[in-house]
Amino acid sequence: MQKSKKLYFITSNKTKFEEAQEILGDIELEQFDIDLPEIQEIDARKVVRAKLEAALAHHEGPFIVDDVSVRWEALNGLPGPFIKWFLKSFSLEEIHAMLEKLGNTATEVSLLIGYAKNKDDIHFFEGQVTGEIVAPRGEYFGWDPIFQPEGHDKTYAEMSREEKNKISHRRLALDKLKEFLGLL
Amino acid sequence: MQKSKKLYFITSNKTKFEEAQEILGDIELEQFDIDLPEIQEIDARKVVRAKLEAALAHHEGPFIVDDVSVRWEALNGLPGPFIKWFLKSFSLEEIHAMLEKLGNTATEVSLLIGYAKNKDDIHFFEGQVTGEIVAPRGEYFGWDPIFQPEGHDKTYAEMSREEKNKISHRRLALDKLKEFLGLL
Repeated sequence: MQKSKKLYFITSNKTKFEEAQEILGDIELEQFDIDLPEIQEIDARKVVRAKLEAALAHHEGPFIVDDVSVRWEALNGLPGPFIKWFLKSFSLEEIHAMLEKLGNTATEVSLLIGYAKNKDDIHFFEGQVTGEIVAPRGEYFGWDPIFQPEGHDKTYAEMSREEKNKISHRRLALDKLKEFLGLL
Repeated sequence: MQKSKKLYFITSNKTKFEEAQEILGDIELEQFDIDLPEIQEIDARKVVRAKLEAALAHHEGPFIVDDVSVRWEALNGLPGPFIKWFLKSFSLEEIHAMLEKLGNTATEVSLLIGYAKNKDDIHFFEGQVTGEIVAPRGEYFGWDPIFQPEGHDKTYAEMSREEKNKISHRRLALDKLKEFLGLL
């Protein structure tokens, strides 16, 4: 078990950082905003590992970095880690309309967190949530207004941040990280 | 104008290499099969530039490397350089069925060739062809059976290699490279 209580979270996204800090609670997180090249790989572990190795070449760890994958059944599991390009190229309404036309809105979202103390000490923690893409409801960040997790009648965006943090893919992955760090 | 008549073409794909050699004719091409990381970027120039820089770090040039982008109107211009992941996740029939369901099969394919003598001497040459995604006809490699260029009644796969090499996105890009090299 690691004893370190300070972690660098590599992200340029303030909301992601705040969510992570809220969930991790005790652990002191520091935002580390460094622009790392992202490799083109469908396997999120390879994407995350390459980022951790690049970060370790710049600065001492430990680091965490994450990557979100979204799998649409209608697209045979794509776009996976390429979701960000869909969010840049489509409005949320258009994503919903596309999946409706394809006749299948089933969605699995997963967050992969990579933790690295050094190059030989890299660990992965994954949280997955299944649900549906719906017409946008609520306002928040990213694609939260169109994702409704299974067993809920609200989209991520309609939930309070506390509600979302109890059930989100980020929560599930961060819980595994916390357990690993011996803090649960 | 460059006078060099020997070029290293960075590719692991033998058919691509043969097509390029046939089109380039006079220029002596050598296949350089090195596994370079591909960055995750929608801008093909950034993808190609990163590969050229990585290759130059290993070996003396001049190098060419290419990247294909496919833009589907039904997907607001995606998948772009991420086409390879669609070809891994979908059968050709499924790609056609998906675009039919979305009501738009219009497609633009472009080949971007990057040429580098050294890090400060990088040039780009692009060839674009518009057309439609159709039900698979003919057998060849990649997605050739489902791409029918505008103004033709054959798919790429139904054309002889000579026919295809006269009109393809690869031909258009390689012609620009040849012109640059002073050989046209």
